[in-house]
Amino acid sequence: MKGKKLYPAAITIFGAKGDLTHRKLIPAIYNLFIGNHLPSSFSLICVDFLPDSDEEFRNYLLGGVNEFSRNGKADEMKWNEFSTRICYIQGDFLKLDTFVSLRKKLDSFDKENKQRGTRLFYYAVAPRFIEVISDSLYKLKLCHQEKKDRIVVEKPFGTDLDSSKRLNRFLGKRFAEAQIYRIDHYLGKETVQNILAFRFANYVFEPLWNHKYIDHIQISVAESVGVGKRGGYYDSSGALRDMIQNHLLQLLCIVAMECPDAYQAEMIRNAKTRLMQSVRIYKPAEVFKNVVRGQYTAGMVDDKPIPAYRNEDQVSSGSTTETFVAAKFFIDNKRWKGVPFFLGTGKALPKQTSVIAVQFKESPHKIFKDDIVPNRLIISIQPELEICLLFESKVPGLEMKLQAVDMDFIYQENYTESIPEAYEALILDVLEGDATLFMRADQVDAAWKVVMPILNAWKKFPTRQLHFYEAGTWAPAAARELVKPYAKHWFQLPVKNKVQPILKDSL
Amino acid sequence: MKGKKLYPAAITIFGAKGDLTHRKLIPAIYNLFIGNHLPSSFSLICVDFLPDSDEEFRNYLLGGVNEFSRNGKADEMKWNEFSTRICYIQGDFLKLDTFVSLRKKLDSFDKENKQRGTRLFYYAVAPRFIEVISDSLYKLKLCHQEKKDRIVVEKPFGTDLDSSKRLNRFLGKRFAEAQIYRIDHYLGKETVQNILAFRFANYVFEPLWNHKYIDHIQISVAESVGVGKRGGYYDSSGALRDMIQNHLLQLLCIVAMECPDAYQAEMIRNAKTRLMQSVRIYKPAEVFKNVVRGQYTAGMVDDKPIPAYRNEDQVSSGSTTETFVAAKFFIDNKRWKGVPFFLGTGKALPKQTSVIAVQFKESPHKIFKDDIVPNRLIISIQPELEICLLFESKVPGLEMKLQAVDMDFIYQENYTESIPEAYEALILDVLEGDATLFMRADQVDAAWKVVMPILNAWKKFPTRQLHFYEAGTWAPAAARELVKPYAKHWFQLPVKNKVQPILKDSL
Repeated sequence: MKGKKLYPAAITIFGAKGDLTHRKLIPAIYNLFIGNHLPSSFSLICVDFLPDSDEEFRNYLLGGVNEFSRNGKADEMKWNEFSTRICYIQGDFLKLDTFVSLRKKLDSFDKENKQRGTRLFYYAVAPRFIEVISDSLYKLKLCHQEKKDRIVVEKPFGTDLDSSKRLNRFLGKRFAEAQIYRIDHYLGKETVQNILAFRFANYVFEPLWNHKYIDHIQISVAESVGVGKRGGYYDSSGALRDMIQNHLLQLLCIVAMECPDAYQAEMIRNAKTRLMQSVRIYKPAEVFKNVVRGQYTAGMVDDKPIPAYRNEDQVSSGSTTETFVAAKFFIDNKRWKGVPFFLGTGKALPKQTSVIAVQFKESPHKIFKDDIVPNRLIISIQPELEICLLFESKVPGLEMKLQAVDMDFIYQENYTESIPEAYEALILDVLEGDATLFMRADQVDAAWKVVMPILNAWKKFPTRQLHFYEAGTWAPAAARELVKPYAKHWFQLPVKNKVQPILKDSL
Repeated sequence: MKGKKLYPAAITIFGAKGDLTHRKLIPAIYNLFIGNHLPSSFSLICVDFLPDSDEEFRNYLLGGVNEFSRNGKADEMKWNEFSTRICYIQGDFLKLDTFVSLRKKLDSFDKENKQRGTRLFYYAVAPRFIEVISDSLYKLKLCHQEKKDRIVVEKPFGTDLDSSKRLNRFLGKRFAEAQIYRIDHYLGKETVQNILAFRFANYVFEPLWNHKYIDHIQISVAESVGVGKRGGYYDSSGALRDMIQNHLLQLLCIVAMECPDAYQAEMIRNAKTRLMQSVRIYKPAEVFKNVVRGQYTAGMVDDKPIPAYRNEDQVSSGSTTETFVAAKFFIDNKRWKGVPFFLGTGKALPKQTSVIAVQFKESPHKIFKDDIVPNRLIISIQPELEICLLFESKVPGLEMKLQAVDMDFIYQENYTESIPEAYEALILDVLEGDATLFMRADQVDAAWKVVMPILNAWKKFPTRQLHFYEAGTWAPAAARELVKPYAKHWFQLPVKNKVQPILKDSL
């Protein structure tokens, strides 16, 4: 346990048969269980539309744990103990009956424990169900104790600023803001959490962390997969809504926010919101100069063919939905005056990699004749977990010759135990009522404000500057053009144990 | 070759039978030869008192190369080619005849080459011979071409400020300052040279490199050997003269000097001299508060017994000579106001290690509850070549728990070829007329000024606060007391691949 005493907890998952539950939530909760992080009394109530027995459903979940848990196959004894806490409710989210059944389960759990437990309601459902589920929880007073009851909502939080505001207002009438946990699993990732430690527990970086010393910052999240089975959702969303509005802008906040006065949820959320509200909002005319979009055509990734996006299942044949975005943002505050933040993300790229690169400026005066690569700090989020600082060093030998090398801290070399998955950290946080890593309504709205001019411009000109790129290649040339005045490349992680100019081209 | 065209060069070594020549100079020159760094025409003239034939002498040198060269045993063909350039002159340094023989060799070398070559005269001799050799070179005009002829003088440069000034004046009357290469082999070490690159080619460290962010700096040079055969010299010298006055104060200059406006010998020497002249000179009353001395008693190092210093060969039985010094210095300038520099060195310590530790300050405001180890940069000079930065990082797991870890750059992991020895770099510099890494007269005098009050105080009170420490232990407790207000320890290199609070006690 993290140290706080946990009360008996009932975790309800809406969307029990979905991929998220199967691949992420149950393995995470199971790992919390075997790590003794769950309260001794807990219940896992899973709700979905399709019929199933408790027994069959448990076996289906076991399959997910065996396949997707970071700890490998489940231990038979432990799983048996764990699975007795799981029950399945077959029910339509649209019908109040379903929630009446749920109430029964919750009540009997409380009765068993002789106290009212913590309740966590996880919305692992399509966005269209958020309102009706909330309404039913509200009507039946299942989630009305502000200090004990919490809902967890997955993105997308609306599809634009208006719908986001509407959703926030709707939820706000039924729950206190403190009960609403808007989850962005990127924020639960180990290296992302470590950015907070790295920035605020180390005094040497703070003096450098501003426009005087930083030239630009790149935040890149590359995926090698195509849209796969998610074409229906994705085609009405696109990379800007699916990735930039949440994951990448959240990373931006963590990298660029002011230091909170204490490590305390509201202070951190205040600092992040303040940062998000200072991101420059583009005028319509500025959008096409600062934001590049692309869509993949047929190609190969890892020797496997990927069809053109327009030929993917449930995607419209003339779709102009972007599967790639590279954007340059500015933050209009004292710290970041004039420093561009490049955010890039895309699907069907050559490999999966998430990297934050902080490119420092060149020295204003050089005393060595060699070409000097300015310092660069790279924080690799996945698949490698690593922090490294690129610096110039003398090449051993009889001449004063310089070369860019890197000093690094590699998680794998230093920690032998497997590292908790983001969902483990985040679910435990919800159980403990710690909202530090979750998004507040005002921050979500601020993020929508940033992307709205882009969405509007693309809506108005659906085909203008829509760049096509072959699946398995690093993004449209226009994305490289965007960074060119600042950097030769989008950076990726340097190759280990090789002293090479670390200017690998990626994205 | 380093790029400059080298003229035919005659290298004369006075003290050809000494340890320095055998272990260091000849292996270095041989390695320069096999690396094609020497001019195609060169001659190695070795002078010493004892009789020997060219043939026997060459075999004696070959033994030194085979035993001490970083490249292992000499290649037979290459050695044969190299050794034909070696000749031996038997002669008394006190007699002019010796130099007449030398003149003949030099003249015939020039005649062979049909041009006057570069001449390098290496004084690998006891200090008492410096003046007489210089005088003879001067009288016979062997070293009178300012641009071509150079002498290389080994420390000690005098035994105090007066004798240093006297020696500098003496040499100054016979040679131009630009001809005098005062060698400190520490400055030729790869990591020491790299400090210049590290500080001045990387823009991120400069903003931190001052009293605002640096708490203190430690420069430690620990030796595991006792005085061995050098008791006679050492007993009249001591650690302060033998190590602090030269090696450690030189390291201090490189770590703390202002950035020169160009990477150019005189500018760098100006910057170093300026720094040395700003080191605070202690008043007699301040000496015992700021400088700790010690002398080893009998003990074991690496399972081998070491006798008490007073029982070492050629050491007086009641000797008060220090074999250990730890001193706190301040630099009275804008950059370093109030920052202590701890210099520590000693013999018969548990292991050989030379380390520079830059201890950054604590953050003025902490937002995490954990104990935080302030950032520390460690530059390891020997035996490991390594640069590492200690920083706080989140321990992977479900809590926000911090731990000091380090990111490192390890030469051995990045460079497979063996790294040139300091003497190779420095001898080549002399051949090329590059004085960057050599000490100028004014800098040597300034270093003596720093140590004089200490020498005087110890002379006046020979036994006061002379701490005894057992050979094979880390220094007298008083040395630890000296750093205590600033650091828990004298730092040494963190243990590789271990995430541990890096507070290893050393010195």
